[in-house]
Amino acid sequence: MSDRKWFTEFEGPGHGRTLRIDEVLVDVTTPFQKLKIFENESVGRVMLLDDAVMLTQRDEHIYHEMLVHPALLAHPEPKDVLVVGGGDGGTLREVVKHPSVVRAVQCEIDVEVMSYSREFLPFTACGMDHPKAEVVVGDAIEYIRGHQDSFDVVIVDSTDPVGFAEGLFRGPFYDDVKRSLRAGGVMVQQTESPLFERVWWNRIYDELHQSFTNVHCYWAVIPMYPGSFWTFGFASMDRDPWGAFDEARGAKVPDLKYYSPKMQQAAFVLPRWAHRQVSLSQEEGGG
Amino acid sequence: MSDRKWFTEFEGPGHGRTLRIDEVLVDVTTPFQKLKIFENESVGRVMLLDDAVMLTQRDEHIYHEMLVHPALLAHPEPKDVLVVGGGDGGTLREVVKHPSVVRAVQCEIDVEVMSYSREFLPFTACGMDHPKAEVVVGDAIEYIRGHQDSFDVVIVDSTDPVGFAEGLFRGPFYDDVKRSLRAGGVMVQQTESPLFERVWWNRIYDELHQSFTNVHCYWAVIPMYPGSFWTFGFASMDRDPWGAFDEARGAKVPDLKYYSPKMQQAAFVLPRWAHRQVSLSQEEGGG
Repeated sequence: MSDRKWFTEFEGPGHGRTLRIDEVLVDVTTPFQKLKIFENESVGRVMLLDDAVMLTQRDEHIYHEMLVHPALLAHPEPKDVLVVGGGDGGTLREVVKHPSVVRAVQCEIDVEVMSYSREFLPFTACGMDHPKAEVVVGDAIEYIRGHQDSFDVVIVDSTDPVGFAEGLFRGPFYDDVKRSLRAGGVMVQQTESPLFERVWWNRIYDELHQSFTNVHCYWAVIPMYPGSFWTFGFASMDRDPWGAFDEARGAKVPDLKYYSPKMQQAAFVLPRWAHRQVSLSQEEGGG
Repeated sequence: MSDRKWFTEFEGPGHGRTLRIDEVLVDVTTPFQKLKIFENESVGRVMLLDDAVMLTQRDEHIYHEMLVHPALLAHPEPKDVLVVGGGDGGTLREVVKHPSVVRAVQCEIDVEVMSYSREFLPFTACGMDHPKAEVVVGDAIEYIRGHQDSFDVVIVDSTDPVGFAEGLFRGPFYDDVKRSLRAGGVMVQQTESPLFERVWWNRIYDELHQSFTNVHCYWAVIPMYPGSFWTFGFASMDRDPWGAFDEARGAKVPDLKYYSPKMQQAAFVLPRWAHRQVSLSQEEGGG
């Protein structure tokens, strides 16, 4: 064991999470980012992008279930869904579980994330092979500008708001998302953790509030992400998380390990320290 | 920085959480355990017992608030409260916030935990100096046998269920707790994480169910604990978490950073993977 390497993702200058690299499966630099996939005894396959944990086999279900189902259940009949990023396929895997979904488009800029996921992360990549799934390789910022009034739900499943993904956390992109949504449409986005990235986090919610009328934050515990307390932003012009929420419909979503309709309600209750940093409308969003 | 040491608490053979030791404040072996307190730039003071993180200044509020307030708010008028263990004082600090509490006894076996906490962890140790607080140095297992029908709430704030604390997670102790409770009394206990200590966790809930009629599990995210998903066991012969729950009373508890009455309700909703391992009555406990 002593000759094995360890990977540590720092959450701040003095602390982090450490994972033993039992076997390196992929270690490449794509035109967009560094991509690494390795095997770990405890958490299975691990994918890093630019040295940040994107997923582990052990807890990716929490992230993907909680990113997808609250938005799809807030909409009474989501038919066309766009996934921005999401190259590992896990988000698509959850989207296609909803019977109303006719077409789930994934627009991912980095084709190598998709191809290596197909090879080494079949448990998420299976989403890309579903008959309802459609995979587009390209820049989602451009794609979404060409698709106005086209989607019921837009799911932003991106890397951290630095580098080439930063534009996905900014007002101009949010305004484009707004135009790509049909009436009653919903956007949901992974929005990092307020615990150790407070500045980013505040800025994201400030910009969401500037572009959308209804903005709500919800959360899940994702042990292998920095801080383990992870948030998601629900945003819409004309829909809140609860008006169309149907517990019976939620109970029929198959193959879930974390999500339940009751968990959807619980997830909108934030710790007080997350309340203080968001607007009043946010605080009233508790389930 | 390169000459500084790091402490890693392993959650399994291949992963853990790592903290930089910026300054060692205490490093002793008491008659019961190894005790270490150090300073870390990001999370403040850190206390280890037998090389396990007991608290960090940054997130101890989550543990202490969520250990104490759900049980005290489930009881309509808690007057006499016993804290088993809890030598850092943080649990007492939360207990004495409730106006109905007349007397909060802390029975801690290791006097050195208390004295070093007073010196280096004043933010929790302040609980021991409150006029309602009474500190007993001794074995809680013996103490509780001598105090039948004496408490409205018993809070078990112990180390992990190995070594000298193991007896605090076993049926004979639970039966003693039952006898020490008045009618309508409640026990609450920190019950580890099911994520990486499934065998312990299952056994704890099996034994709780054997001793008590009403057993419910709830949880909080505690970033610096192993797995970050941490559970608490609520146990009673004749009370459930909701019959006496008064949201207005809960809203009056002062100086909270994580807990809120809505969070108390949300916390009883478990991820599905935690449901499967507990009894049906547990699953029905969702708020």
